[in-house]
Amino acid sequence: MAGANPFIKQYLMTAGPTPVPPRVQAALAEPVVYHRAPDFDALFARVLARLPGVFQTGNDVIVLTSSGTGAMESAVANLVRPGQPILACAGGKFGERWLELGEAFGADVLAHEPEWGARIDPADVDRLLAGRPEIEVVFATLSETSTGVVHDVRGLAEVARGHEVLLVVDAISGLGATELRQDEWGVDVVVAGSQKALMCPPGLGFVSASQRALDFAAARPAPRGAYYFDWARAIAEQRKRVPATPFTPAVSLVKALDVALELIEEEGLDRILARHDLLARATRGGVRALGLDVFGDPDERSTVVTAVELPDSIDGGQVPRLLRERGIVANGGQGQLQGRILRIAHCGYFGAFDVVVSLAGLELALQELGADVELGAGVAGAQQVFAEAGIPVA
Amino acid sequence: MAGANPFIKQYLMTAGPTPVPPRVQAALAEPVVYHRAPDFDALFARVLARLPGVFQTGNDVIVLTSSGTGAMESAVANLVRPGQPILACAGGKFGERWLELGEAFGADVLAHEPEWGARIDPADVDRLLAGRPEIEVVFATLSETSTGVVHDVRGLAEVARGHEVLLVVDAISGLGATELRQDEWGVDVVVAGSQKALMCPPGLGFVSASQRALDFAAARPAPRGAYYFDWARAIAEQRKRVPATPFTPAVSLVKALDVALELIEEEGLDRILARHDLLARATRGGVRALGLDVFGDPDERSTVVTAVELPDSIDGGQVPRLLRERGIVANGGQGQLQGRILRIAHCGYFGAFDVVVSLAGLELALQELGADVELGAGVAGAQQVFAEAGIPVA
Repeated sequence: MAGANPFIKQYLMTAGPTPVPPRVQAALAEPVVYHRAPDFDALFARVLARLPGVFQTGNDVIVLTSSGTGAMESAVANLVRPGQPILACAGGKFGERWLELGEAFGADVLAHEPEWGARIDPADVDRLLAGRPEIEVVFATLSETSTGVVHDVRGLAEVARGHEVLLVVDAISGLGATELRQDEWGVDVVVAGSQKALMCPPGLGFVSASQRALDFAAARPAPRGAYYFDWARAIAEQRKRVPATPFTPAVSLVKALDVALELIEEEGLDRILARHDLLARATRGGVRALGLDVFGDPDERSTVVTAVELPDSIDGGQVPRLLRERGIVANGGQGQLQGRILRIAHCGYFGAFDVVVSLAGLELALQELGADVELGAGVAGAQQVFAEAGIPVA
Repeated sequence: MAGANPFIKQYLMTAGPTPVPPRVQAALAEPVVYHRAPDFDALFARVLARLPGVFQTGNDVIVLTSSGTGAMESAVANLVRPGQPILACAGGKFGERWLELGEAFGADVLAHEPEWGARIDPADVDRLLAGRPEIEVVFATLSETSTGVVHDVRGLAEVARGHEVLLVVDAISGLGATELRQDEWGVDVVVAGSQKALMCPPGLGFVSASQRALDFAAARPAPRGAYYFDWARAIAEQRKRVPATPFTPAVSLVKALDVALELIEEEGLDRILARHDLLARATRGGVRALGLDVFGDPDERSTVVTAVELPDSIDGGQVPRLLRERGIVANGGQGQLQGRILRIAHCGYFGAFDVVVSLAGLELALQELGADVELGAGVAGAQQVFAEAGIPVA
């Protein structure tokens, strides 16, 4: 369990936690503030005013001190009671978390689990809901980090509306990195976390719930199974003249978030999404130039994380270790994909040359493992995409 | 909702969040690390090895990404099922949280609520448990921050053992600032948070649960009402060869905690408790010298926070504002004690001259409000106690 080589410069290239901009990092080191004093009040009000823009919603966005999974749990705890039928869709490890959460809270879980890497087909969900009209809540994922697949949330929302059921979407790894128009698409609940495209350290969870979802939660019979994660309590505090949290929030992380949201506002959501799209296309260009394939549904190409299928000829499980020896911390495959993929992240505070670093590292690792690889070929493939895109004009 | 005057130096004098040592602050600004890579593994293993020393226990201490209230919720979610009878003791706002949590989770709550400021009498708890032999879990508080009273946890643990019930103690504001010998006293579950005597920003919760408590939780029928806060899941991850967390932890806060625990180890728990005792005695000396009283049970004197009864002759609700205008952020009274007390904190990263600052500020505020106060008298009362104690020898 030795740490990383302290003499090697470190490059954080994971899909979460993601690297944090220097200004955000500096905010973390500012003195701790009391959460019920004017300085924090002003800061928290600013954060609450800015968050809905990222969700593209008019809802209040609830700020929780928890991992993203805590925010997911809040959705189950507020919307589901023991014995209640729900539909949970999973095409990878994070989708499966909805199943596990539903079961932990005693729901009657109808699991829709096409294989890992599949993109949930809204038509399948339509069929499943038609067969179980008693279901009132559906759970799904925006970007499935374990497989690099971004699901068709817009299509799922249409189906949900058709059946008059609530759609809850885990957007932890996708929000701010791929399109999600909550209000326009009619997504009832969007859950997010601080440590992905929101460019903060982990430790804050977010929930944007429509009035319909809040009313549905309020109408559930007690006991709620939620106190710390009670939406109504949080909303009531946030809507006060001086917005507050029911419990001591992670003030340092909220300070960091304030700076990150300022950066997001400065860059602009459209430009941010375009940047992610370019980074993803360049990554795919590099992968193709190496003669490798992208894992998962071929009709969908994620702007959040690119899962590269590793050659069968090598011991793929060694790739993350070989990258780490060179200072790059990157994600291999999880669960059933262990050793089969490398995930190249481009979510949040990532730029063109981060893609170059990841591909250059991958090439070196592949060579060391005996794969047939031309050093620089993947990098050149990515460069070609960047060259065609030109330098972005502000 | 204007912020504090930016030209006035700020002094954080609250009982939580508490001020954070410079080395801890600096750790917060370090680059974000991936939570499943060797650097974090080594750091987290170090944190897990050090935490039990502060709890004075041989238990694994569970690290949660949440406020202290999240850690409290975990105790209820793991130990209590709807309809289950519990005893919840409350002598202030934070004790009342146990009642609210019990009710939120559908427990049959027997509430023991002497007035705010009272110290829970173990004999009363003994009597209540004798009358309700079906009760298996009792909830209590170590340091009641709202009133400045430290409860007799040792006595409560003796009573709990006599009835063979589990005792769960919220030690959020007291752990590391006042005596709590978990194993020696036989306290089954101790809950804590990062933002008090552990000298970190808020955002981490801790649970030290005895094997008896873990077995009791495991024997509860599903649904658990806990997934994010499931103790068994957290313990299983923490006990792996490479200790981990089930969900992405607040890595920046864990880094800060690593440094804070190092500082605690360097100072030594005995010396830390002696320092808190001295700071509290000096504060009381200052309060007495001002002709004021300490609020709450006269037989108990907290080493965590001193609640000062404000003179009836003044508008006590103005004191926090007047302090704030001078740069001091301090806690007035909450709930029914609003306007009646000022709480002088000395919990965590506090030294002699922080007590001096708080008392000097209080004197100025009292004078402005028209109270009969001799400037410097309270400060001198505290100085007298420090002078008698001499300079601590390392």
